[in-house]
Amino acid sequence: MGKNIVQKILSSHLVSGRLKAKTEIAIVVDQTLTQDATGTMAYLQFEAMGLPGVKTKLSVSYVDHNMLQAGFENFDDHLFLQSFASKYGIYYSKPGNGICHQVHLERFAVPGGTLLGSDSHTPTCGGLGMLSIGAGGLDVAIAMAGGSFYFSMPEIVLVKLSGALSPWVTAKDVILELLRRLTVKGGVGKIFEYGGEGVKTLTVTERATITNMGAELGALTSIFPSDAQTKKYLKMQGREDVWQPLKASANAQYDETVEIDLSSLEPMVARPHSPDNVCKVREIQGTMVHQVCIGSCTNSSYHDLMVAAAMLKGKKVHPDVSLTISPGSRQVLEMISKNGALTDIIAAGARILDVACGPCIGMGQAPPSGGVTVRTFNRNFEGRSGTLDAKVYLVSPETAVITAIRGVISDPRDYDMPIIIKDPKTFLIDDSMIIPPSENPAQVTIIRGPNIKPLPKKEPMPDTLHGEVLLKLGDNITTDHIMPAGAKVLPLRSNIPAISEFVFEKIDKEFAKRAKEKGGGFLVGGINYGQGSSREHAALAPMYLGVKAVIAKSFARIHRSNLVNFGILPLTFTEENDYLVLDQGDSLELVDIKKQLKPGGILVVHNRTKNKEIKVTHLLSSREIDILFAGGLLNYQAQKN
Amino acid sequence: MGKNIVQKILSSHLVSGRLKAKTEIAIVVDQTLTQDATGTMAYLQFEAMGLPGVKTKLSVSYVDHNMLQAGFENFDDHLFLQSFASKYGIYYSKPGNGICHQVHLERFAVPGGTLLGSDSHTPTCGGLGMLSIGAGGLDVAIAMAGGSFYFSMPEIVLVKLSGALSPWVTAKDVILELLRRLTVKGGVGKIFEYGGEGVKTLTVTERATITNMGAELGALTSIFPSDAQTKKYLKMQGREDVWQPLKASANAQYDETVEIDLSSLEPMVARPHSPDNVCKVREIQGTMVHQVCIGSCTNSSYHDLMVAAAMLKGKKVHPDVSLTISPGSRQVLEMISKNGALTDIIAAGARILDVACGPCIGMGQAPPSGGVTVRTFNRNFEGRSGTLDAKVYLVSPETAVITAIRGVISDPRDYDMPIIIKDPKTFLIDDSMIIPPSENPAQVTIIRGPNIKPLPKKEPMPDTLHGEVLLKLGDNITTDHIMPAGAKVLPLRSNIPAISEFVFEKIDKEFAKRAKEKGGGFLVGGINYGQGSSREHAALAPMYLGVKAVIAKSFARIHRSNLVNFGILPLTFTEENDYLVLDQGDSLELVDIKKQLKPGGILVVHNRTKNKEIKVTHLLSSREIDILFAGGLLNYQAQKN
Repeated sequence: MGKNIVQKILSSHLVSGRLKAKTEIAIVVDQTLTQDATGTMAYLQFEAMGLPGVKTKLSVSYVDHNMLQAGFENFDDHLFLQSFASKYGIYYSKPGNGICHQVHLERFAVPGGTLLGSDSHTPTCGGLGMLSIGAGGLDVAIAMAGGSFYFSMPEIVLVKLSGALSPWVTAKDVILELLRRLTVKGGVGKIFEYGGEGVKTLTVTERATITNMGAELGALTSIFPSDAQTKKYLKMQGREDVWQPLKASANAQYDETVEIDLSSLEPMVARPHSPDNVCKVREIQGTMVHQVCIGSCTNSSYHDLMVAAAMLKGKKVHPDVSLTISPGSRQVLEMISKNGALTDIIAAGARILDVACGPCIGMGQAPPSGGVTVRTFNRNFEGRSGTLDAKVYLVSPETAVITAIRGVISDPRDYDMPIIIKDPKTFLIDDSMIIPPSENPAQVTIIRGPNIKPLPKKEPMPDTLHGEVLLKLGDNITTDHIMPAGAKVLPLRSNIPAISEFVFEKIDKEFAKRAKEKGGGFLVGGINYGQGSSREHAALAPMYLGVKAVIAKSFARIHRSNLVNFGILPLTFTEENDYLVLDQGDSLELVDIKKQLKPGGILVVHNRTKNKEIKVTHLLSSREIDILFAGGLLNYQAQKN
Repeated sequence: MGKNIVQKILSSHLVSGRLKAKTEIAIVVDQTLTQDATGTMAYLQFEAMGLPGVKTKLSVSYVDHNMLQAGFENFDDHLFLQSFASKYGIYYSKPGNGICHQVHLERFAVPGGTLLGSDSHTPTCGGLGMLSIGAGGLDVAIAMAGGSFYFSMPEIVLVKLSGALSPWVTAKDVILELLRRLTVKGGVGKIFEYGGEGVKTLTVTERATITNMGAELGALTSIFPSDAQTKKYLKMQGREDVWQPLKASANAQYDETVEIDLSSLEPMVARPHSPDNVCKVREIQGTMVHQVCIGSCTNSSYHDLMVAAAMLKGKKVHPDVSLTISPGSRQVLEMISKNGALTDIIAAGARILDVACGPCIGMGQAPPSGGVTVRTFNRNFEGRSGTLDAKVYLVSPETAVITAIRGVISDPRDYDMPIIIKDPKTFLIDDSMIIPPSENPAQVTIIRGPNIKPLPKKEPMPDTLHGEVLLKLGDNITTDHIMPAGAKVLPLRSNIPAISEFVFEKIDKEFAKRAKEKGGGFLVGGINYGQGSSREHAALAPMYLGVKAVIAKSFARIHRSNLVNFGILPLTFTEENDYLVLDQGDSLELVDIKKQLKPGGILVVHNRTKNKEIKVTHLLSSREIDILFAGGLLNYQAQKN
């Protein structure tokens, strides 16, 4: 039987296991990437392993998150990352060079290869036919040390595209439509492989928008074939040499198929507060807006900003709207500056922000109280914008620009003239802001600012866990709920004791205090617990506060792995109704853990307060169980060595 | 006897008093400006006066400080300012349109007129021959209400310029040289009027750099003649119609004369942590730097950024340096974008930030711990950069750029080729981001976010003041020490109860708590107390905390006025040595204040703890004494109406 694209790449990288859905496999990681908000911790973990340098084909350390730099912490982190990269054989992309996913797509991604990144939008490079997976920083650290990446073999879904997009309908609308159909948990345990005749009509840039926001489906990753479009893109980047064709065999099998007729789509919008709360732009047009933000790893490419410039040319931003532009990379910014498009954007009255993630992760440009903001980003979780009661809508750049001009949410098909953006002959290539590692690593000293604190350690798991339910949560809790980002908290990413004070801050301001007073305890969650960003701080900080286990209806993949990596038990109800039996303050106990915790096994949780027992299970492999017993992956690795 | 320029403008605007140094005079204010960090409070004060609209010839509300927008507060303030401006006849310059002083110079300043601004760098427009004075927000509110501006008639110093600047020596170096000679208190009670043959050689842009940073001398303001250079600048701005010649009469008299031979100057630098800690760049060349920042109201003009672009063209920023560019206005940004200079800046590896004050006021780009940052700004007070132990050097754009390229502080005369920047034929004029007031003000509703709190009120002054010395301070305490700015505190400018928690935070974290516990009390200061920024919050917040009087060796002008405006007694020692008799915790008492407080009078302060008496005096006019008795200027105005 012929293989699909995913199976081809996995087969060529397989280290252990076999490609059977829901069983654990391990693969070789060719490339890694980190960004600054997850990177310092990943590198501290790598350092703890005591190796002289990375063992990957390529590792890149990007700075794109903490770039407002309101205090010394951010610049200190940048100096740490730069010196660390120099010493350990890692390329360092300076602040201002671009968003990790955009730059990696432009300069490093390789069709048919594997990429592990400590950022949940790492699947972006799937647009170029690279199997690109987001993971916790510790998984990335292990990969840099030459270790394999372990995960549960997902089901493979064929997304069969037919037809072609109509004018004013974009790649963003394709992924919004998929989110509308499948919801934010529709991709859990799955990889989306794009195929069908419609694929040919999409450029790599468009594909990357789709694979990027595939993360919002909860999927492991998404991937496109490597074809003539891929070759063309790589040629424009001066990297034609890394191109290789990659497509599914004619008789390839899939676990599932989803069909989308591109020609049937129209402009879509995700309404507050979830990327799957999708409807047609037409349905909510006329809604007054305060702010429009263009950028993010989803929509800040050359093409995206050229569209924005062409639409803004000769027009003005509405007087009651603030329009911001965050270019995705210096390559993009320099090109639109050189060809005059940037002048059109400035002349229209837009604000040009630093080349960074920016407002997408709440680093600035928080909307007004109760305000409406329309953004080309990938997430609109409550409070992520920096304003708890703001209403964030996610749209394509086309929809964003017409909205900025009119002051109300508008369908771009009502724009007054056609817009055609031509591909450039070649992209402008200048890697001078990507600093290669030192040729004399022994002479490099790591610069360590006072906010960069040592890794907290955890003891091996005891045989009995007891404690109170510290907090009971609903469905679709995001890692933004667990460990908020934004301008106040992100600068503390290198300092676990300090950042732990903010765990669940937007849900319960007393959480950290209570957790510490009670000596830790349990969390109870609903469906899809831990969706969203890959930040391992959402496991590391709860671990620091003494959280021993999370009992939920289901988990998002990366967060479940992060819990395991930091020694926190991720347990699921065998009966979902038992969720009702657990309340905040209940005293719980798990005994005989060594005996009870087996692959596929069931554990009994005693609720001492209510004098009841409930049964829980898990999806842990025997390797993961060993990691948990050891008190986390770092301890486990140390035992192995 | 013929008049000098200052006397001419004052005479034509005089409302009361006569032009005798150290006596109180009052003038008509033609124009006002506010920025967002001082503006919300100024407009709340204006609102409290109950008028239907402003009575000035022109009032402009700028947004340039709080533009990182890490929380809802900033955007809420912007909406308040925009709606307030629309209702009360004020022009509103949107975020992204530019720094108030740069835009006002470009679009509004008028030779021979008077301008009052709630920002200490308002004197910038003195470069265009406008008498431009920085003041507290309440003074600006009174002026908008048609009230006069009262101040002590300063001495007038002629700065006689001869010769012309050598290549690579700039206007910034002129004002740094003056700061070297005269120090940050050298201009207290003075206006600097520039004259001599050298004046002709300086463009309005260069003059504005000099008058801008004249604020650092502690001067009331600085002013240049209106001549052919002025006419040329106004013509390029399409405003030739407002030009009028303005020069000192041939036999004009001055209180003092300072002579500077422009041709004798060389590149200068202000070292940490004071703008008067000046030496030649040559003396410290080779110092390693982490960061270079170009921008601010001192050096972000078209000419400044064209110089930067020309020097950066074909070169690269040093790998270990982060270079940021904050354009001064949208006019500047659009012009350098259109003519290709911006591309040269981006290609060199600079980071382009929003059009705003930005890092100059600690809004982002904080240096690393103990780091070295070289900036084209006007102030390098300790901690103002956002990093308490950073070392900030102030230089010209020319020195900044060569330093960014080389990675060490360098003299621009060592640059490898000559740079010639031609004036543009005309500036690019587009006022579309300046929103005129509504034609139907009755229909405009003021938008008031939850962080915008009502003004705190103060009771009339009692006849006895007693309390403890809450804090004893040294010389040259800045308003940044008293009321810090930066990314954490600036967003609270519309909320006095919240911002008061940060008073003296960088000197004594317990101050606010102690002040409240003790029911207020006294402050003791050294020389030049309250220098720096005009922020009235440095008086308003201490007032809120119960500070009753400040006893210092001497005061900076704007802060002294702000203390009076908010009902806090500014007292000076008759014997400077008595400073030694007062310590933190001493219990002080002033009795019979109504009897004791007379113009030129002496008051007795009883130190009950040490059982000693000391004598203090003041420079208060009888009008100011009445304001103090009333409990501040707002109460005083209400009594008068």
